[in-house]
Amino acid sequence: MRIAIYPGSFDPLTRGHLDVIERAARQYDKVIIGVGINGSKKPFMPAEFRLRAIVASTVHIANVETESFEGLLIHFARDKGAKVIVRGLRATSDFDYEFQIAMANRRLSPDLETIFLMTKWEHSFLSSSVVREVALLGGDFSSFVPEATHSIISEFLSLPRIN
Amino acid sequence: MRIAIYPGSFDPLTRGHLDVIERAARQYDKVIIGVGINGSKKPFMPAEFRLRAIVASTVHIANVETESFEGLLIHFARDKGAKVIVRGLRATSDFDYEFQIAMANRRLSPDLETIFLMTKWEHSFLSSSVVREVALLGGDFSSFVPEATHSIISEFLSLPRIN
Amino acid sequence: MRIAIYPGSFDPLTRGHLDVIERAARQYDKVIIGVGINGSKKPFMPAEFRLRAIVASTVHIANVETESFEGLLIHFARDKGAKVIVRGLRATSDFDYEFQIAMANRRLSPDLETIFLMTKWEHSFLSSSVVREVALLGGDFSSFVPEATHSIISEFLSLPRIN
Amino acid sequence: MRIAIYPGSFDPLTRGHLDVIERAARQYDKVIIGVGINGSKKPFMPAEFRLRAIVASTVHIANVETESFEGLLIHFARDKGAKVIVRGLRATSDFDYEFQIAMANRRLSPDLETIFLMTKWEHSFLSSSVVREVALLGGDFSSFVPEATHSIISEFLSLPRIN
Amino acid sequence: MRIAIYPGSFDPLTRGHLDVIERAARQYDKVIIGVGINGSKKPFMPAEFRLRAIVASTVHIANVETESFEGLLIHFARDKGAKVIVRGLRATSDFDYEFQIAMANRRLSPDLETIFLMTKWEHSFLSSSVVREVALLGGDFSSFVPEATHSIISEFLSLPRIN
Amino acid sequence: MRIAIYPGSFDPLTRGHLDVIERAARQYDKVIIGVGINGSKKPFMPAEFRLRAIVASTVHIANVETESFEGLLIHFARDKGAKVIVRGLRATSDFDYEFQIAMANRRLSPDLETIFLMTKWEHSFLSSSVVREVALLGGDFSSFVPEATHSIISEFLSLPRIN
Repeated sequence: MRIAIYPGSFDPLTRGHLDVIERAARQYDKVIIGVGINGSKKPFMPAEFRLRAIVASTVHIANVETESFEGLLIHFARDKGAKVIVRGLRATSDFDYEFQIAMANRRLSPDLETIFLMTKWEHSFLSSSVVREVALLGGDFSSFVPEATHSIISEFLSLPRIN
Repeated sequence: MRIAIYPGSFDPLTRGHLDVIERAARQYDKVIIGVGINGSKKPFMPAEFRLRAIVASTVHIANVETESFEGLLIHFARDKGAKVIVRGLRATSDFDYEFQIAMANRRLSPDLETIFLMTKWEHSFLSSSVVREVALLGGDFSSFVPEATHSIISEFLSLPRIN
Repeated sequence: MRIAIYPGSFDPLTRGHLDVIERAARQYDKVIIGVGINGSKKPFMPAEFRLRAIVASTVHIANVETESFEGLLIHFARDKGAKVIVRGLRATSDFDYEFQIAMANRRLSPDLETIFLMTKWEHSFLSSSVVREVALLGGDFSSFVPEATHSIISEFLSLPRIN
Repeated sequence: MRIAIYPGSFDPLTRGHLDVIERAARQYDKVIIGVGINGSKKPFMPAEFRLRAIVASTVHIANVETESFEGLLIHFARDKGAKVIVRGLRATSDFDYEFQIAMANRRLSPDLETIFLMTKWEHSFLSSSVVREVALLGGDFSSFVPEATHSIISEFLSLPRIN
Repeated sequence: MRIAIYPGSFDPLTRGHLDVIERAARQYDKVIIGVGINGSKKPFMPAEFRLRAIVASTVHIANVETESFEGLLIHFARDKGAKVIVRGLRATSDFDYEFQIAMANRRLSPDLETIFLMTKWEHSFLSSSVVREVALLGGDFSSFVPEATHSIISEFLSLPRIN
Repeated sequence: MRIAIYPGSFDPLTRGHLDVIERAARQYDKVIIGVGINGSKKPFMPAEFRLRAIVASTVHIANVETESFEGLLIHFARDKGAKVIVRGLRATSDFDYEFQIAMANRRLSPDLETIFLMTKWEHSFLSSSVVREVALLGGDFSSFVPEATHSIISEFLSLPRIN
């Protein structure tokens, strides 16, 4: 069985991410969405909400699983039996960063191939950080994220906050 | 009346910003410099000083106004009756980031057009972050910012600091 | 009257070009589409066909004129009384080339401002060279060009050829 | 059977190309190397030599076939039953060009997915044009191309030439 | 005596940095590695460890010295009698940032020339941030840093931590 | 004696080239301007005019020599006893191309170091191709090239032409 990992922080999942997931699911027998939860930087939404949003937004895709992971991606991939890392390329991707990460992973684990897929053109300018900014400033971000993700972000934003 | 917004954090205003303002003022009937004061990241100078520096450095341009805004840029533009967002392109602009923001604004407000102007070549490498770094390390940043801005930054830096 | 020039070889006009023309026509009182016909490189379609395609595809825009020009763009702009050059920015624009040209024009004619507009995201990957390649290889390029342009290219391609 | 096309002009095949072929051959059941022979620009080596070089340099890979094609890539892919186009990403790839082509192919044939693989870092600066330039100027290009390709280029360069 | 400064935060030194140091040492009579210790952002390793790692990893190069500095690079260079700043270019360098800094330094100190050297291709994707990430997540980063640096990072990571 | 080669086609020499030459002349004992005259593409000006323009424009720099070369740059450098290749970086340089060439030269001749210098900001958008285009269309290119080069281009353009 050909298994691919699609790693990210998905903070939150965008329509661009979902497009990549759907494309990857047509290419591989199983796609595992790996939600990185390394503690260094404080996320917009806690991992629990991010995972729920992904699960709720991918129920229509049979061969997708969602899981969080700590530590190195290559260890997570090895544990899952994945031979492929999937990354999305947007028109405005940070290619340099993507290349650094992919080359580092290749050195650490030469058998793990990184594969780049292009997102749909209409999502080619979307990023989680744009979604976060619009959401935090009270704008309408419904066209940027899958419907199920929109509900979960809205639920999260309506929680009482302690700062 | 054709009104354009030139948004930014202007932390601080550079000679490159001023060049864009002068160019925009020749293109539109009124240019509103919108100083974003969304609380997320701590600025180098408080909004009050940033606004004073802009006002003092643009007194020679009749059709320019300066105002701070909170919330989404598209809401500020709508409230001001502006149909155009102006952005400066430097040789070293982060095009990808500019594109993401402009495309997000277009989705949120399709009638609001983003227009890019090129800065003068001699300011093409200037950025607020370079000014901040030089200023904080005690260097001479007078050739990077308008004269009036220089005075106000110097005043700010000479204030007693509580950290 | 505020007049802008939108220069290019339009060999052929794409839907991305048309989108820029429509945006420019909302920004300026008159937009003159300047079709450069400098002899150096042999075009795909003769200027006559390129001009006809533009005229036919812009009949719905009242304040647009189409004209060919030889020689320097800055001279054409001066003759037409234009103070602004409009250029489209695609996600995949050659920024470096755009900047070189715009900076050279600014040195030659400091009062002429170059203004960049963003094309619609769905046309952000279109270029005349892609259209030419698909057309010459017998592919269906109807979604890449305006309908009226499609007819004129088809007419041109069906002409008997002497090579 | 999962079939992928790896298209190019391979004028000539480099070690970077071969690395991509080997990676693709591990990902798909069959990889068809499609040598484009559209007549527009005169190649360095005739298609016959380019094909021979590829065949000779890939004899060690069981699931690779080499074939020339005229016309559109999407038609070639359809005729071969391929669902995937493979492209190599070098550090110095022309991403913009790659994106334009891939997006055009997606519009023309939505079910055909383009997949990007990274070449090995030591081949990340190689290109056919560098090989051609070194070869034509009498330099030692043996470290840039597979051994079998080197022999065939040398054979080609030793042919009597009519110019 | 021709003296060059190679500035950076070296947090930590990578094999790419060491390659640049070795190249610079062949070009200049003396190379001073300047470790910037401006307080603004908290480093991964304290300056003391970073300096020790550099000294230990460059013992084989006779004409290299290592020193920390506070304040502006141009002042450090002037104090050291250096006329040249050396910077490494990786395939994935942030050219824009490098240009901004180099141009700012040129304005502040016109006689100080910035010189760019290319790292070896196999280190062209390495960065300190990748090393830090792999090290913090417990991965094997030994192929990314010089051996002596590896020991010192390991020593640092084994210290009891107060957070 | 430390000898550097500054290679190019200089078709024609620009003020940006001259700036790089002056900077290189301060860094090395001798700078040899190597004018490549490989026959493949037809130049704008014959080598004789290009060399005359360089010689006339660099008479004020004592340690500069100008020479044409055929064949590989690394062979020319070896013959001249040069250990360094100098290249100028403009804001709008084609980094990818520069990197490909520099990496190829490094493989072919590991001891030959390529060094990149930044041009002055006001020449950062100049290129020979812009000069050629303006000159051929009858524009005023005097601010783009050194004065002595301007005279020689004008002389060349006034020659009777056989096409």
